[in-house]
Amino acid sequence: MNLEGMRVMGIDPGLTRCGLSVVQAGRGRAILPVSVGVVRTPSDKDLTERLLRLSVAAKEWMEDYSPDVVAIERVFERGQVSTVMQTAHVVGVLVLAAAERDIPVYMYTPSEVKKAISGNGRADKKQMTTMITRILGLTEPPKPADAADALALAVCHCWRAPAIVRMDHTGLGLGAKTSGVRGQGKKR
Amino acid sequence: MNLEGMRVMGIDPGLTRCGLSVVQAGRGRAILPVSVGVVRTPSDKDLTERLLRLSVAAKEWMEDYSPDVVAIERVFERGQVSTVMQTAHVVGVLVLAAAERDIPVYMYTPSEVKKAISGNGRADKKQMTTMITRILGLTEPPKPADAADALALAVCHCWRAPAIVRMDHTGLGLGAKTSGVRGQGKKR
Repeated sequence: MNLEGMRVMGIDPGLTRCGLSVVQAGRGRAILPVSVGVVRTPSDKDLTERLLRLSVAAKEWMEDYSPDVVAIERVFERGQVSTVMQTAHVVGVLVLAAAERDIPVYMYTPSEVKKAISGNGRADKKQMTTMITRILGLTEPPKPADAADALALAVCHCWRAPAIVRMDHTGLGLGAKTSGVRGQGKKR
Repeated sequence: MNLEGMRVMGIDPGLTRCGLSVVQAGRGRAILPVSVGVVRTPSDKDLTERLLRLSVAAKEWMEDYSPDVVAIERVFERGQVSTVMQTAHVVGVLVLAAAERDIPVYMYTPSEVKKAISGNGRADKKQMTTMITRILGLTEPPKPADAADALALAVCHCWRAPAIVRMDHTGLGLGAKTSGVRGQGKKR
């Protein structure tokens, strides 16, 4: 299965800072960086206004870079309740933006991403940034952390996609180009 | 402050069943039912497809009934983790639909709604349905529970809105017609 040329948009969701990235799969495990950035929304604005801004930004990125697939971090009930809920609202808005463009969505947990990138599900931020910088051949480490995390999600999907596609050929129904939200190689 | 004629859309968010309602404030505490329904999305479809369907339905209701304000249930970290997260994704999509139309959004916790409707923050479903049927002068109890909950949210906002508007006049910045998400009479 050759996924060369596949464009993956990686998203590290957040209401205050949302990391967005696009990478393109090259030969074998090679991955080319296309774009990376962080969208911020002011904390003194209402949730409605902030979700609207994030939605507009995500849609612009999808229009500008035409990703074949979106990889987004799965939200867990960790940390402060209100922050987790806000992040989950953001994920809803981002998944909708992809759904409206018929772009399939895959979700990965932070430890799945860390394992895919560094071989260690508990890698720290510094290790992850070092690996991402090396993998993408960047001249300097991506900043802030949300940008590096968004790139890591995209790279994670590039490396896991061949296995997901192979599983699809076994008849598990994991087509790469349907509008699905999946993770851990299982259909959800 | 006269809120007569104000149209409130009440939403009981959920991925499998999402209750939608519209009521109109009458004289004093009188409230007229306008519409109520439940949007269902099939559990065998992907999250992307389901969020898209809910978004389309909510937008249709907003276009059809032109609510002045949306009242939606605040999601808590209760129950099964995955269900809570899915509901939070749905809330994000619904709040976005309102934001795109510049409709202000207010959030209320289940106990705030119960207290407003029945005077008891721990009222059970049967009590709530009885009260809603009586308040709106319905010929029969609204079904299913999600429909009754959606109506209860809308009624709750109608009765709390005058206090919120009064607070706005004290200079707390709680304008009724800005795109805000609020609850418990405090700006968030």
